[in-house]
Amino acid sequence: MTPLERLVAIEEIKQLKAKYFYAYDNKLWDMWRDEVWAPDARLEVPEMGRDIAPRDAMIAWVIEQSADQVSVHHGHTPIIEITSDTTATGLWAMEDRLYRSKEHPLNGDTAYVLGFGHYHETYVKLDVGWRIRSTRLTRLRTEYVKIF
Amino acid sequence: MTPLERLVAIEEIKQLKAKYFYAYDNKLWDMWRDEVWAPDARLEVPEMGRDIAPRDAMIAWVIEQSADQVSVHHGHTPIIEITSDTTATGLWAMEDRLYRSKEHPLNGDTAYVLGFGHYHETYVKLDVGWRIRSTRLTRLRTEYVKIF
Amino acid sequence: MTPLERLVAIEEIKQLKAKYFYAYDNKLWDMWRDEVWAPDARLEVPEMGRDIAPRDAMIAWVIEQSADQVSVHHGHTPIIEITSDTTATGLWAMEDRLYRSKEHPLNGDTAYVLGFGHYHETYVKLDVGWRIRSTRLTRLRTEYVKIF
Repeated sequence: MTPLERLVAIEEIKQLKAKYFYAYDNKLWDMWRDEVWAPDARLEVPEMGRDIAPRDAMIAWVIEQSADQVSVHHGHTPIIEITSDTTATGLWAMEDRLYRSKEHPLNGDTAYVLGFGHYHETYVKLDVGWRIRSTRLTRLRTEYVKIF
Repeated sequence: MTPLERLVAIEEIKQLKAKYFYAYDNKLWDMWRDEVWAPDARLEVPEMGRDIAPRDAMIAWVIEQSADQVSVHHGHTPIIEITSDTTATGLWAMEDRLYRSKEHPLNGDTAYVLGFGHYHETYVKLDVGWRIRSTRLTRLRTEYVKIF
Repeated sequence: MTPLERLVAIEEIKQLKAKYFYAYDNKLWDMWRDEVWAPDARLEVPEMGRDIAPRDAMIAWVIEQSADQVSVHHGHTPIIEITSDTTATGLWAMEDRLYRSKEHPLNGDTAYVLGFGHYHETYVKLDVGWRIRSTRLTRLRTEYVKIF
């Protein structure tokens, strides 16, 4: 790739991850499926003991988790590396807030989760554009608040 | 536009929004007026029932709201689309914190606001460079803390 | 510089600051030293009365401060200006969270710090790439929580 092609790919991947956040927090699940993830996508959340693939099984699990939850996910200061014409890696700082309802607490008694960590990701360029192929979430700190 | 011109415009608009945040939170109102907004700018805050234009009327309202408030506004993961040589759209994730004084609470009794949402924006390229023409704030979650 | 060279430099500096955050919060001090800072680096933290240089003295102080602390530092909406082929300036919005232990509170009794402000920085391009030459932290708001 030329330096220009590399910059174009980096910007496309930043906007891809931006769509991940926007569709997730607004529960736009069709957009999340079709515009964000590769069909063979894999999601690893070690703190929850989860390692799910492919895409549709993973999305079904996320939708079930989300239910009537209000979520806020933010991503920061990405380090995107283009590793070939059709592959790339990414490292994002992140912060998330999950507001649960009394009807659907987390782990039986958690009303609110505030977490900080990093996404470790790979991307693939398909005919339709760049897509997330895998993401793994590591944590610096997670707070579980139990009061509704 | 060429791919390079498009990337230059996207970076200019990111820095434009960065100036929006920096001047707002530091109460640099001349910079906010002259380097951020188009003369026909419009601000929509549906949660507050506000839809104000043009620029100078809108800025007068924001300055009045700000008074002795300390504010922190952060923007994340923009999706900037260049729609012509002189127009563009943007979608930003955001988080804001408003610290009010006892003398100027919000809504009569709120000391502190913590909010999350998105800016939906349009931009215009004038002779002096890119400017924000309109912004509309939607919310995922807003917390109003009433204790001083 | 051409517009393309300028964009390449801006992206490199964004990734440089991303490494600053990643290595800092993960306590990867060798990476922090070798991949982030220029040898003549200077750190100014006016609120703590600190102005330390060069790099190795500064890093020794940061490591001492960090001890068993968990930290989360996030940076937002940079305004990067390339001022010559080998120099640049940057302005970043920031948020940090410092979680102290009972054994090592801050200022004798602080368990947790939540702060907001801006980094005012200069960069230099060395043979090994862009590095931070100086950073100065100003604050919009800092909360010191004293309960463990």
